[in-house]
Amino acid sequence: MTDTPRPSIDALTALLANDMKAVNQVILDRMGSDVPMIPQLANHLIAAGGKRMRPLLCLAGAFAHQGKQETADSRALLLSAAVEFIHNATLLHDDVIDESDKRRGRDTANALWGNEASVLVGDFLFARAFELMVETDDIAVLGMLSSASARITEGEVKQMTMAGKPDSPLQDYLDVITGKTAILFAAAISSGAHVVGADKALVEALHNYGLSLGMAFQIVDDALDYRSDLAAMGKNNGDDFVDGKITMPIIIAWQEGDEAERAFWQRTIGEGEITDGDFEAAVAILDKYQAIEKALAQAKDYAEQAVQSLAIIKDDALRSALTDAAYYTVARTL
Amino acid sequence: MTDTPRPSIDALTALLANDMKAVNQVILDRMGSDVPMIPQLANHLIAAGGKRMRPLLCLAGAFAHQGKQETADSRALLLSAAVEFIHNATLLHDDVIDESDKRRGRDTANALWGNEASVLVGDFLFARAFELMVETDDIAVLGMLSSASARITEGEVKQMTMAGKPDSPLQDYLDVITGKTAILFAAAISSGAHVVGADKALVEALHNYGLSLGMAFQIVDDALDYRSDLAAMGKNNGDDFVDGKITMPIIIAWQEGDEAERAFWQRTIGEGEITDGDFEAAVAILDKYQAIEKALAQAKDYAEQAVQSLAIIKDDALRSALTDAAYYTVARTL
Repeated sequence: MTDTPRPSIDALTALLANDMKAVNQVILDRMGSDVPMIPQLANHLIAAGGKRMRPLLCLAGAFAHQGKQETADSRALLLSAAVEFIHNATLLHDDVIDESDKRRGRDTANALWGNEASVLVGDFLFARAFELMVETDDIAVLGMLSSASARITEGEVKQMTMAGKPDSPLQDYLDVITGKTAILFAAAISSGAHVVGADKALVEALHNYGLSLGMAFQIVDDALDYRSDLAAMGKNNGDDFVDGKITMPIIIAWQEGDEAERAFWQRTIGEGEITDGDFEAAVAILDKYQAIEKALAQAKDYAEQAVQSLAIIKDDALRSALTDAAYYTVARTL
Repeated sequence: MTDTPRPSIDALTALLANDMKAVNQVILDRMGSDVPMIPQLANHLIAAGGKRMRPLLCLAGAFAHQGKQETADSRALLLSAAVEFIHNATLLHDDVIDESDKRRGRDTANALWGNEASVLVGDFLFARAFELMVETDDIAVLGMLSSASARITEGEVKQMTMAGKPDSPLQDYLDVITGKTAILFAAAISSGAHVVGADKALVEALHNYGLSLGMAFQIVDDALDYRSDLAAMGKNNGDDFVDGKITMPIIIAWQEGDEAERAFWQRTIGEGEITDGDFEAAVAILDKYQAIEKALAQAKDYAEQAVQSLAIIKDDALRSALTDAAYYTVARTL
């Protein structure tokens, strides 16, 4: 994904721009360590940016309860930095696991500093995230985020055990992305509301919003991997195919496919025997069954579920910005 | 290290035997997951045992405040399982980093399941540890353990950046082992007291005990790596030498050594050019300067500092058992 402006998420970033500046300062202040390699490596990853979806959601959660503040509540700032640290810890570990060389168009930390450093600095960021949460003095958010963190790893382990199995049931894929993506979206926005004192109804509604948003986001992200026309967006097309990663389009194509096609999936995604032209052949099969379109349609359903959870939000600007963010997850593909 | 009886730590294990049974049950109950690979891998590591020093210390902390209970306070049980999970998470990640094939005489998890699984299950255990701590409802212990966890990784990163540098100052080594070992010993016993309501004086005294005990323990552990007569104890002698790890005997021998010896350390530990007979030559240089004995003498100083912190403990049996445990760290070498 590039950093070019995207209207539909810009409403949310504009609304929270001041608060995000403050969060970025907390992030910079709190990734420090007397051991110089830690801030060097952390800075390489965190400064590289990305959309900062999770701290944005966390701040949106606080906004939903408190309304617009001059500056966001300091507890929400700490918590927003914490969720970004958790996310970046998982990215560092993912890059070790995937042996990735590139992320967000830059060399990965493991390519530059080695796997050892990436594992350890990931652990550091995770521990530091919990230190920041302790400072909020809200043990319930520690419960939400520690539980989310456990489920993230469960999702990733499940994804690993599914790799190379194109006959996996769709529910397994949904379990994987619930864990690896949607749970942290849900925890970010709901804990942002809880930490500033929101009641149960709002916290639950925002949890549901984040969960549906995360599902839509990840389904689309996975589907984009088979859209070679989007290579300009910085996606590494075909990575999932080469890695044998099982995503929704593959499951759909397997379920609807004939014997010859299943043999193709088994040889490529299953056995990892991939030669020139196989990716194009894979895309052709997916097109035949409109597998990408069907995946995107499911993502759209999730986006609509997300929007339905927003009725509880009183502030028009925030509700509108979060609505846009939900539709943006789907719109960016078209 | 083997599981053969060692009198001086046995007093502590006997005193806390009932509680440790309960902790082991919590450990087994709480490493479960719907993703089967997680309990499989966690069980492989955790069931392999070890001395369970950290949960023992945590239970001792609770005992120090509450006195002997029929069964230890449930909060202390949860916390004891949590510190063991944190420790095992670091072991899983260490084995990935060191590319170790064996731990406690068994194949390592990364050798059996791969690095990916070890990284992720380590993350899972870490997250689960924080979930258990949340259940104690004592946010201060979350602060103690999250801060300890950050310092563990700082110690390990520092150890990594020191590797291959035999001219490192002694203080750097002390910083490394404070982080990678002593801090968790300190946090285990002091948080065990805090979680059952101990006052500041007891919590601080126990923190100091754990810190000194951990220093003694790690200095001895590192020194043993050069004692080939202890190979029967299950130690992999010479691993640190081959890995270029900088420990106290090496620093002493470098500081006292002549130019030829420094060239030897530079070639072997520094450049990793190790051939047959080099380990024996290293041991001979260490013997010449009594470097191992000097390291053990420093460990003994720490053990004595640990014992001095115990004056505050009222229960004679506990104070005696913790005294034995402190001297045991040094005695096991002789």
